[in-house]
Amino acid sequence: MLLTEAEARSLSARAFERAGVPPSQAEDAARILNTTEMMGIPTHGLARVAIYIERIKTGGTDARAIPTVEAPAAALRLVDGQNALGPAVAQSGLAAAIEAAETCGIGAAFCRRSGHIGALAPYLWQATEQGYACIMTTNTAPMIAPAGGREPLLGNNPIGIGMPFPGADPVLLDMALSVAARSRIRDAAERGLAIPDTWALDKSGQPTTNPREALHGLLQAIGGSKGANLALGLDLMAGVLSGAAMLAEVPNANEDPSAVLNLGHMIVVIDTAKLLPTEDLARRMTQMAEAVTGVLPADPDQPVRLPGSRAIAAYRDASRDGMDLPAELVKNLLSLAS
Amino acid sequence: MLLTEAEARSLSARAFERAGVPPSQAEDAARILNTTEMMGIPTHGLARVAIYIERIKTGGTDARAIPTVEAPAAALRLVDGQNALGPAVAQSGLAAAIEAAETCGIGAAFCRRSGHIGALAPYLWQATEQGYACIMTTNTAPMIAPAGGREPLLGNNPIGIGMPFPGADPVLLDMALSVAARSRIRDAAERGLAIPDTWALDKSGQPTTNPREALHGLLQAIGGSKGANLALGLDLMAGVLSGAAMLAEVPNANEDPSAVLNLGHMIVVIDTAKLLPTEDLARRMTQMAEAVTGVLPADPDQPVRLPGSRAIAAYRDASRDGMDLPAELVKNLLSLAS
Repeated sequence: MLLTEAEARSLSARAFERAGVPPSQAEDAARILNTTEMMGIPTHGLARVAIYIERIKTGGTDARAIPTVEAPAAALRLVDGQNALGPAVAQSGLAAAIEAAETCGIGAAFCRRSGHIGALAPYLWQATEQGYACIMTTNTAPMIAPAGGREPLLGNNPIGIGMPFPGADPVLLDMALSVAARSRIRDAAERGLAIPDTWALDKSGQPTTNPREALHGLLQAIGGSKGANLALGLDLMAGVLSGAAMLAEVPNANEDPSAVLNLGHMIVVIDTAKLLPTEDLARRMTQMAEAVTGVLPADPDQPVRLPGSRAIAAYRDASRDGMDLPAELVKNLLSLAS
Repeated sequence: MLLTEAEARSLSARAFERAGVPPSQAEDAARILNTTEMMGIPTHGLARVAIYIERIKTGGTDARAIPTVEAPAAALRLVDGQNALGPAVAQSGLAAAIEAAETCGIGAAFCRRSGHIGALAPYLWQATEQGYACIMTTNTAPMIAPAGGREPLLGNNPIGIGMPFPGADPVLLDMALSVAARSRIRDAAERGLAIPDTWALDKSGQPTTNPREALHGLLQAIGGSKGANLALGLDLMAGVLSGAAMLAEVPNANEDPSAVLNLGHMIVVIDTAKLLPTEDLARRMTQMAEAVTGVLPADPDQPVRLPGSRAIAAYRDASRDGMDLPAELVKNLLSLAS
């Protein structure tokens, strides 16, 4: 079914409002999930509206909570999400970090008592649109073993880096630290397909091509020990410094929608204009883009692109042509919104 | 040959002074390289003293330069290394970032016109000893292709994360983004050994087990496209925002010691005491350490350890028992120092 951007967004916002979410938070969450859907990341897009509302209904998320922000130092913000919707908490954190960076040149928000925030790319994009470089992470439920171990303890904690490109599209890097997303393994299991033996380990710690064994085992981190150590380092930032849950304290919301997540995020923004003039940033980013896209491609039919460029192109297409959504999804949104 | 920590450090400092480096910078560089050697990372340790001095003698590094520091905003520092020794520049950057964080809670230094700075671990350790969490990166000469490409454009830019652990050893994560270090491939080439086919690609972009072909080809990034994109993101921070060289502008100092490197670094420090009381940090880090080291090991004889713990233990051993250095290395240092 074809919906315009505005239709899909307002449908989602209404669904959240019907579930008791205050209008401004409902709009934040709807905009983030809708942008993600338009960027071609449906696993973190509008399908999450129903999942988030299910969590509200079962008590996992507090629809009426309002996140609070403290300023323990001129450039630091501590956000207590109060168990509100994750995108509303992260949106508060981003705004607080930017407000701190306005005076100090760099600002960081550490958020606790938050929920699932969707993809990082929409937040990074907002920061870059305002001239801020951004480094962002969140912790997630355990699915990776620490380096040298064979039990799940670490999330595939994503790292996000955004860089403004004055006069052109920003660079948006949003990557989880597992070789493959859990959703791709679930997908393979549903279709009865095998997975590459580099994606996951079974319960005994051996590589497996069986997606069902993988789902009861462990995801592999990129670079093995390296990715696992990086996931731990990011959890120390997002979980420990914020005062959130960490490691195996983070429950699996897929298994229990009523679980209070207490997720933690770190959002750091840097005012690029304080470091170099906008025209210098534009010139250097142009040189960077020419160098990267000018590299000989591994596949002659697939020219090298900048991180985020495919997602931004998809967003533009959806903005112009409308969003072609599965009928089942639209039906579900309509029923939640009415 | 067995040297004490003090002997090895003062020998290196004297060698740098003999090459024209001012005493305080000579001591900084000697301490960083000596600490790295003691931490069991000889590729980035005292072997670099002669390499750095060779660069001074051929004009690649300016022995007498003094890095300058600007404060474009309350929490930002721009360091112009003036092509001084890399460790002296990074040491200035770390001090400047900490000075900014003293007032603002978080501080960041962006360094340009720097050189090779050794390993990141010694800087992270210093930051954590003063109660600061640290995120750090530097760019390096190109050896990785951008995602989807088959020509070298990106360094295996290391990422460092340090977290204080009050009353115990900090977590120190220091990892380059290539699957394996170039030095391990060089080592395999010298011994005539094959390398795993996941480490490198040959000139035509195909995986190779031949280390000589690998050295003329490309290193593989961790997680393929993911690691390559992360290396690009880190270069945007370390290279573009600092005003340093980026991508293929960074020359290969191994091939030409007289090349001016103009490397860039980003050093971000966060005052943990502003975010949570020291006793809470100690308690959470204790819980974290128990959870991580309590995970069933993949190899029953290798208990799971925290990142950095092996290096810190090696440092302590060397501090107590002395440093057992190759005779050739000591001879070389003695001759450079006299």
